[in-house]
Amino acid sequence: MSTTLRNRRIRLASRPHGEPTAENFLHDTVEVPSPVPGQVLLRTRYVSLDPYVRGRMSDAKSYAAPMEVGDVIVGGTVSEVVDSAAEGFSVGDTVLSYGGWQEYSLEPAERLRRLDPSVAPVTTALGVLGMPGFTAYAGLLAIGKPQRGETVAVAAATGPVGSAVGQIAALHGARTIGIAGGEAKVARLRELGFDAALDHRAPDLPGRLAAAAPDGIDVYFENVGGAVWDAVLPQLNEFARVPVCGLAANYNATSLPEGPDRSGQLMGAVLSKSLTLRGFIQREFFPTLFEDFLRDMSGWVTSGQVQHTEDITEGLERAPEAFVAMLRGGNFGKAIVRVS
Amino acid sequence: MSTTLRNRRIRLASRPHGEPTAENFLHDTVEVPSPVPGQVLLRTRYVSLDPYVRGRMSDAKSYAAPMEVGDVIVGGTVSEVVDSAAEGFSVGDTVLSYGGWQEYSLEPAERLRRLDPSVAPVTTALGVLGMPGFTAYAGLLAIGKPQRGETVAVAAATGPVGSAVGQIAALHGARTIGIAGGEAKVARLRELGFDAALDHRAPDLPGRLAAAAPDGIDVYFENVGGAVWDAVLPQLNEFARVPVCGLAANYNATSLPEGPDRSGQLMGAVLSKSLTLRGFIQREFFPTLFEDFLRDMSGWVTSGQVQHTEDITEGLERAPEAFVAMLRGGNFGKAIVRVS
Repeated sequence: MSTTLRNRRIRLASRPHGEPTAENFLHDTVEVPSPVPGQVLLRTRYVSLDPYVRGRMSDAKSYAAPMEVGDVIVGGTVSEVVDSAAEGFSVGDTVLSYGGWQEYSLEPAERLRRLDPSVAPVTTALGVLGMPGFTAYAGLLAIGKPQRGETVAVAAATGPVGSAVGQIAALHGARTIGIAGGEAKVARLRELGFDAALDHRAPDLPGRLAAAAPDGIDVYFENVGGAVWDAVLPQLNEFARVPVCGLAANYNATSLPEGPDRSGQLMGAVLSKSLTLRGFIQREFFPTLFEDFLRDMSGWVTSGQVQHTEDITEGLERAPEAFVAMLRGGNFGKAIVRVS
Repeated sequence: MSTTLRNRRIRLASRPHGEPTAENFLHDTVEVPSPVPGQVLLRTRYVSLDPYVRGRMSDAKSYAAPMEVGDVIVGGTVSEVVDSAAEGFSVGDTVLSYGGWQEYSLEPAERLRRLDPSVAPVTTALGVLGMPGFTAYAGLLAIGKPQRGETVAVAAATGPVGSAVGQIAALHGARTIGIAGGEAKVARLRELGFDAALDHRAPDLPGRLAAAAPDGIDVYFENVGGAVWDAVLPQLNEFARVPVCGLAANYNATSLPEGPDRSGQLMGAVLSKSLTLRGFIQREFFPTLFEDFLRDMSGWVTSGQVQHTEDITEGLERAPEAFVAMLRGGNFGKAIVRVS
């Protein structure tokens, strides 16, 4: 491998306080190293933008260790093998990796999953057939357990997780309520087959949600928190299930909201309605459900029973602005950056 | 049946605002009616005092319909058959009923369960072998699912639910932390075999709880809420389970606590630690677990593996004061009023 290749990358310059700004990102260029035995050198084709990355920019204790200042921003990637010192991978192979916001990355072979571009567009490995799709599938089916005729609600419902939740719930015979921001997204929810589509930016979400859920809500797939959760909680039925996979509305918060303190009231609702609140990260279900997911979801995507949308930004250098826009809900479908 | 019998009873005079007072209770006396076919006339021997009754005095929507003003205060009772117009029940039989705060009650036979005084003292049907014991058994085993070597914490741990939770958890190989108010109760926790016993009235409960749970907490059986829950939450391990069967600390609250609003922070903990919060009422598990409970718990009580304590107040007229004392944590063991 020529060592004249240069790797452009974007690193964490400082931890954001609230919404990330340009000053939190450091762009630089370094030499591309050569792989040692067992390693593969990858050129990044696409990098995935996901809300959880905002959490890893902070140093608060969470399920994943935070990034350190100076680290390349993390993210799933679809990459091409440009040099291989590992058995089983050849130049030109397309793989799913976790290379982050850079043009090249060096990875141990055992952390790669080969992608077959003839089966599905490779970007689907970052969305509907990847982590977001699996988050929807595992959380909905293993925790939410929607029954035929029940009502399932989800927010950020045009996003890669929410749109999959709604469509999988419908395939299981549930009535679906999708919540998203703005008229264009609401129109998209109707195309996706949601039985009810609500704009959380329009007035009186609580009243409109109550009207859209005359039999209450049995499963609320929680990925945003905030005002949508406040509107959902009173509508939850006895024995409702709430898989909690994200709280995007809170990720840029810099302090606790003003009172009163409603945490006791929340516990009171858990008690009085025999609710189940269950946080999860998709990797918990990887050993037990990932094969089922790939089989089911590939079938649904191929047959058109599950639709998906991608929102692709061109150029690694625009990753920070695309990331911030996604945190604001500015993306329309799975947010991806095309790197090369 | 002579119609000269008089029934003393205590009714809800008005809904309490905060802690109940004497004005909320109306004492009166009425004629005892005669049973019609299918009914049994019962004389109350013991009435159970339980925290959930405070909730039913309010008109807030909850899992059980509130009492109406004028209703006899509800409660489980151990009663004696004094007149029977139903097959299968004879004068002198002892039964578990739900007669409430009165000397006599008329019940349809199908709502009674016969008690055998030769098997266990009949008052145990209101405590360790009744609803509180079953609440502990079902919530701990079906939701908490303690594993050998895990740490289980419970508050109000000398009470009928908490003491059973701790002892059943220990029988399943868990390490147990009991929390109660005052030195006498803490001493009792040690007698009951809790591995750690903490006084929630002493300073720095969070620090002492952290020290008592060096490996974190895997199951927290929630029956009080408030400051104990605040101390527990930071100690919960990833994948911890929280059966929620009561929030006694909040029952007399008249408004939401001052801010900041920590409800989003609570959801954040659910997410970041993959917690399960699950509200429940024991009756949910009655069809599936009650037979197992009676078999297991009767065995443990008979063998001495599960100890229990009763706190018996003499005289129906003292039920209101005993009830308020129980809500304050003034009872020592299962709170019962001896009526006749």
